[in-house]
Amino acid sequence: MRLRNKPWAKEKILQHPQQVIPEPEKYAGKWRELFQNENPIHLEIGTGKGKFITEMGKKFPEINFIGIEAYDSVIVTALDRLLESGLENVKLIRMNARMLTEIFGAGEVERIYLNFSDPWPKRRHEKRRLTHKNFLQMYERILVPNGEIHLKTDNQQFFEYSLVSFSQYGFVLKEVSLDLHQSEFQKENIMTEYEEKFSQKGNKIFRCAVYLPEKA
Amino acid sequence: MRLRNKPWAKEKILQHPQQVIPEPEKYAGKWRELFQNENPIHLEIGTGKGKFITEMGKKFPEINFIGIEAYDSVIVTALDRLLESGLENVKLIRMNARMLTEIFGAGEVERIYLNFSDPWPKRRHEKRRLTHKNFLQMYERILVPNGEIHLKTDNQQFFEYSLVSFSQYGFVLKEVSLDLHQSEFQKENIMTEYEEKFSQKGNKIFRCAVYLPEKA
Repeated sequence: MRLRNKPWAKEKILQHPQQVIPEPEKYAGKWRELFQNENPIHLEIGTGKGKFITEMGKKFPEINFIGIEAYDSVIVTALDRLLESGLENVKLIRMNARMLTEIFGAGEVERIYLNFSDPWPKRRHEKRRLTHKNFLQMYERILVPNGEIHLKTDNQQFFEYSLVSFSQYGFVLKEVSLDLHQSEFQKENIMTEYEEKFSQKGNKIFRCAVYLPEKA
Repeated sequence: MRLRNKPWAKEKILQHPQQVIPEPEKYAGKWRELFQNENPIHLEIGTGKGKFITEMGKKFPEINFIGIEAYDSVIVTALDRLLESGLENVKLIRMNARMLTEIFGAGEVERIYLNFSDPWPKRRHEKRRLTHKNFLQMYERILVPNGEIHLKTDNQQFFEYSLVSFSQYGFVLKEVSLDLHQSEFQKENIMTEYEEKFSQKGNKIFRCAVYLPEKA
């Protein structure tokens, strides 16, 4: 995604602490208190401009959604969408995914969405990929037993890498689609901004859902 | 593959018991005696016209290859290739894959190749797919610990199905390629007859290698 410099973004974010949660580490292990309900928590890592998470929030009012995004200049667009929607079951956090285990307690998250994550194609950047085992270790920590990760990407190499990385870590494949928009999973699919643009060009979207089985 | 009626095939096969092994159940657990060496055994299930297994046999003289094929009219072409090659580390068996555990002993096989297996796309034929869990159970039995299965196919649905089926059974993905001929695995790849024809049309070949980790 192209990043535009938006000097006013930080200020705007600070003005909306109900939507973009300040000091999120305060809620580690007690996010349900913030939502004031016992609904499951679904996390989107790299929430971008927020189309996916706000549409999911509308479609599934019985789920609490948290979108994580590293950049002020991007999350500010997601904030606009969220304000417009008036949704209370969707929250945003401006943070780096590396901090996940400081922001969420063990077993606090029911599901993680990875949508069109940066593929970091160079081998020397492997550790930055959101499906590198260092990240999978964090996901394991914050996910409930049998919690799921749902991944979508248009990048073939990143998808191949992710399937192998998940499997070698111990995750089990529940669903795999090599052409999401022509598959049975399409009817439930909410497209991201990027996905809409990309698939209009006729390109295929890859998708998988995985879970980490409880250790016997 | 189109099956032609070849009434002479059965006769020809019987004339070459050094190549197409009669009464293979006699060798269950002692295939290395037949090969008269201690080399690893690699199996191709559905060996077709035999291009893959004879080329592999030439390339890897320190491996014993066994090709399994259900049809007389097909295996007879593989027999011709094998006779022409003069290879002694390649044998053929005319049998149905359902009989695997009667023909091979526990842990007797180092690796299994599944090349362009019939995808059996209808759900009611799922049990016939060579990556159905009933077959995986047989493969587990005859494979050595950490033994591998290498699968190639041009059929997207069969590949998706196989990845999930392997993973759910407990196999771990070692390698995945969604475009084999453009991947790092191409340089080691031996093409089957079908693969040559199919890829000339510009279609992609899917490939994975999986293993069943030793239970802790």
